[in-house]
Amino acid sequence: MNKLKELINDLAPHVEDIINQPGSPRTVYEPISYILSLGGKRIRPAMVLAAYRLYSDSYSLEIFKLAQAVEMFHNFTLMHDDIMDNSPLRRGQDTVHIKWDDATAILSGDLLQIEVYEKLTEIGNIEILQLFNSMARELCEGQMNDMQFETIDEVSNDSYLDMTRQKTAVLLGFSLQAGALLGGANATDAEKLYDLGISIGLGFQLMDDYLDSFGEKAKVGKRIGGDILEKKKTYLWNEMWSHLDEGARQEINELYTQPESMIIASVTASMDDTGAKEYTLELAQQYTRKSLNALNHINVSGDKTYLQEIVEILAGRES
Amino acid sequence: MNKLKELINDLAPHVEDIINQPGSPRTVYEPISYILSLGGKRIRPAMVLAAYRLYSDSYSLEIFKLAQAVEMFHNFTLMHDDIMDNSPLRRGQDTVHIKWDDATAILSGDLLQIEVYEKLTEIGNIEILQLFNSMARELCEGQMNDMQFETIDEVSNDSYLDMTRQKTAVLLGFSLQAGALLGGANATDAEKLYDLGISIGLGFQLMDDYLDSFGEKAKVGKRIGGDILEKKKTYLWNEMWSHLDEGARQEINELYTQPESMIIASVTASMDDTGAKEYTLELAQQYTRKSLNALNHINVSGDKTYLQEIVEILAGRES
Repeated sequence: MNKLKELINDLAPHVEDIINQPGSPRTVYEPISYILSLGGKRIRPAMVLAAYRLYSDSYSLEIFKLAQAVEMFHNFTLMHDDIMDNSPLRRGQDTVHIKWDDATAILSGDLLQIEVYEKLTEIGNIEILQLFNSMARELCEGQMNDMQFETIDEVSNDSYLDMTRQKTAVLLGFSLQAGALLGGANATDAEKLYDLGISIGLGFQLMDDYLDSFGEKAKVGKRIGGDILEKKKTYLWNEMWSHLDEGARQEINELYTQPESMIIASVTASMDDTGAKEYTLELAQQYTRKSLNALNHINVSGDKTYLQEIVEILAGRES
Repeated sequence: MNKLKELINDLAPHVEDIINQPGSPRTVYEPISYILSLGGKRIRPAMVLAAYRLYSDSYSLEIFKLAQAVEMFHNFTLMHDDIMDNSPLRRGQDTVHIKWDDATAILSGDLLQIEVYEKLTEIGNIEILQLFNSMARELCEGQMNDMQFETIDEVSNDSYLDMTRQKTAVLLGFSLQAGALLGGANATDAEKLYDLGISIGLGFQLMDDYLDSFGEKAKVGKRIGGDILEKKKTYLWNEMWSHLDEGARQEINELYTQPESMIIASVTASMDDTGAKEYTLELAQQYTRKSLNALNHINVSGDKTYLQEIVEILAGRES
């Protein structure tokens, strides 16, 4: 983790900057400081820097503005998603709409989104603004698809991967592409880095789904089986479901009156029996191999080790 | 109204464009089409064109993108404000969060905001993006100030005017300034037009407040006395309140158990007795005179009559 740590250190004062914002009335600024100070791995701004370091080892002012914009945008989506999903907790703390109220969370989120565009405008690069806009549009579409999946019984794995691409992967793709462009990458290589970000995002989400059911609690850092108890239509769940006949599906549905430990034990057994467990793990690993392979084939003048380490960390969830 | 009508006609196909958006999933796009199709006077995009026509009489592609961006941004603020304010109706129809739900209104609003930036990015003018960002930030601050005024008993008229400047006037200022810049105005004149937009906005809001209590129902197009029944802290109300002693204030507060017609009759009488009625009308008219005077003193190569008519219409609420 030395390489990532180095990037996080480089980022630290710029993260402090966006946390400590002046501005009045305070009630619209405090939720922004709050959500940004809850922490998180800062993996997206680190990806911005890692992509930049592929081409240049002397940072510009602009690259930190881009890193800030990406982290702020991510937190904007969290602030609004938490209202939409009725989530009471974020990183173990009250979500903004719980600590304040819905109106404050909507408005502070809107302001945070405007601040993202302020950063991007300061960079002054129209191409990066265009890439950002397309990404942000897809992310909204992905959030709507995700909300709609909750209301339907069966989601195809193609639909799930497409939603995951929109909701999670495009922001990673943008982070790499835009970071590389500011580092001096040509358009073709920057697009390859976008695709690389998509692979990283899909692999990360699949592994996240897998570990939620089959990880070790101590390593994953949260309770195992949460997705199963929520009947969340993850890749793992959908893959299992597609292999079950009507009778087996009904058995699973009937399980949900049983104690939680029983539900988790039975569903994970079914995920194993149907091959969904193995298949999901294999697919996640495929995305990681594809990512590392793509990175090997890009010719860069700078240092690949930053991005390599990030790919490996996200694949193994070691941090 | 011939001049405004002409501008509205020029705008019509471009308004149709933003109403009829393709995109999937439909559930995130339909609320955008819906709110944009509810109508309204389209006064903000008309102001964009009117400012442009001060300098040029041949439209560019960019000026219509700016007009679209301004109308879309206005509707984005309405979509989110209606959730924050718990408003069930907008232009006589269900608001988005009522017709769909809060989550959809939040997300479609976020998408609409991104579309605003797509339009601005297509214009490709960094200065206009900067002006827009500052304006949008102030508008968020104004909405928070407005929400906070509801929770306090006494609002000074300075605070009220400052909130109105942020919440209503800055978007009019931006519409004129940016429209003029795209028409070829120099920076100094564009700033004068921003100030003109601020005067128009303040005058408009004061007149709106005045007519809500003292207008004719048929002309104003809505029930008279609504603000009074809500105890809304308008300029008119605050001005009256500042002239009342403790006893008179208590009498007003006690009125609110009486029938509505009695409340309205007594409060309007008090607004008249304290001079608040006359003072508010006079101040509104001052802003209009100031606006028309400022317009007279700007040297332009084009046609002033479009903007002149808009100032007069907004001052008299004739449309």
